[in-house]
Amino acid sequence: MNKAVVPISGGIDSTVLLNYAVKCGEFDEVHAVSFNYGQRHDIELLYAQRTATGLGVNHKVIDLDFFKHINTSSLTNSDIDVAKTRDVLGDAQTVNYVPFRNQMILSICCAIAESLEANTVYHGAAQVDTQAGYWDGSNEFMEAINSLTSLNRKHRIKIEAPLIEKSKKEIIEWGLELDVSFEYTWTCYEGKEKACGECTACSSRIQGFIDAGIEDPLEYSQEIPWSKLLNVV
Amino acid sequence: MNKAVVPISGGIDSTVLLNYAVKCGEFDEVHAVSFNYGQRHDIELLYAQRTATGLGVNHKVIDLDFFKHINTSSLTNSDIDVAKTRDVLGDAQTVNYVPFRNQMILSICCAIAESLEANTVYHGAAQVDTQAGYWDGSNEFMEAINSLTSLNRKHRIKIEAPLIEKSKKEIIEWGLELDVSFEYTWTCYEGKEKACGECTACSSRIQGFIDAGIEDPLEYSQEIPWSKLLNVV
Repeated sequence: MNKAVVPISGGIDSTVLLNYAVKCGEFDEVHAVSFNYGQRHDIELLYAQRTATGLGVNHKVIDLDFFKHINTSSLTNSDIDVAKTRDVLGDAQTVNYVPFRNQMILSICCAIAESLEANTVYHGAAQVDTQAGYWDGSNEFMEAINSLTSLNRKHRIKIEAPLIEKSKKEIIEWGLELDVSFEYTWTCYEGKEKACGECTACSSRIQGFIDAGIEDPLEYSQEIPWSKLLNVV
Repeated sequence: MNKAVVPISGGIDSTVLLNYAVKCGEFDEVHAVSFNYGQRHDIELLYAQRTATGLGVNHKVIDLDFFKHINTSSLTNSDIDVAKTRDVLGDAQTVNYVPFRNQMILSICCAIAESLEANTVYHGAAQVDTQAGYWDGSNEFMEAINSLTSLNRKHRIKIEAPLIEKSKKEIIEWGLELDVSFEYTWTCYEGKEKACGECTACSSRIQGFIDAGIEDPLEYSQEIPWSKLLNVV
């Protein structure tokens, strides 16, 4: 029996990935896992839940209360402002970086996978994560964590990241092919009722829709001039 | 400022290791971290607390409630019996193995270390862990997890396992040099008031004291014939 474990944040990348895992026909069972780590945008968990329910997959939301001890990130410390522009692209890690988040989350997913006898764990890392300086979204990270988990002699797990070379545009296009409803995805790092349209996450999302030539169905707290943005051809 | 993060279970190995980290003079700050993962022998946490308090170090006990989803181990599933003898030595992983426990715990310690700006994380893996078939206590595991964490460009962390080549006898002897009080360490995998003296963990502990030529000061639920065991010379 082929099983996969898919961490899902509720954002575009992991939502497309979960849709892929469910619809690719490779797996008899797909298990979605979300993490409540005190992120200011925990609204994303509702979106993850909605997606998992819609796809009819088992969904666990895991509380990682200990993230209160890891307080150097804007995402988990309300005293630190979320980085606001895409100008932080480059090599340094921004204040949005949460120390070792991906390594922790994937290690937990591997443990769940082993106990479920699943051999595939997905990681939603995409091109933009490397561009944003997240070391734990890079190809090197994928190779190294797979080298580590392959030492488990009893149970083999492969961690796969099919989006890692893909731009946001390509991921959105793939999502459209997979019938993903993007109005039910959440990207914004701010924890407000509507997406801000200004943080690094919103900016990259909006740019992705511009590049894909379609309007983002999500509502933002400021008006996004889509008709102008999409008519620059 | 030199800082270290030391996961401490309350057992002999990690207790000796914490004593070493505090007393070696290399660190200005030592932070101890214990994990409550629903282990049947959570009594060990009281021993860890006592050791940390005695050494005057900061001690966090982190709840990992999600281990309820990882229920293939005798340590976290009360329906599975703890392996009872040392005859399980060898290559296979016993029912006492908790999937990816060390990878998860060390990843969390790395995250805490990064947020504290600590550059050293200790791992209490010892020779017996490899002998017991725990892939996540081997030299290969140490190399692979260090390769992974070294990809973090912003903050360098070295995970060190000074006990990894040491036998239980050598660790006990080192502990004696470091003034460790072994009556305040807990090893037994059973969650009972007194150590059982029969599980794989007790067996290896008792053998360690026999090899070191001294009596274990811990009280067992059955009489251990120390004078006979220590006079086989």
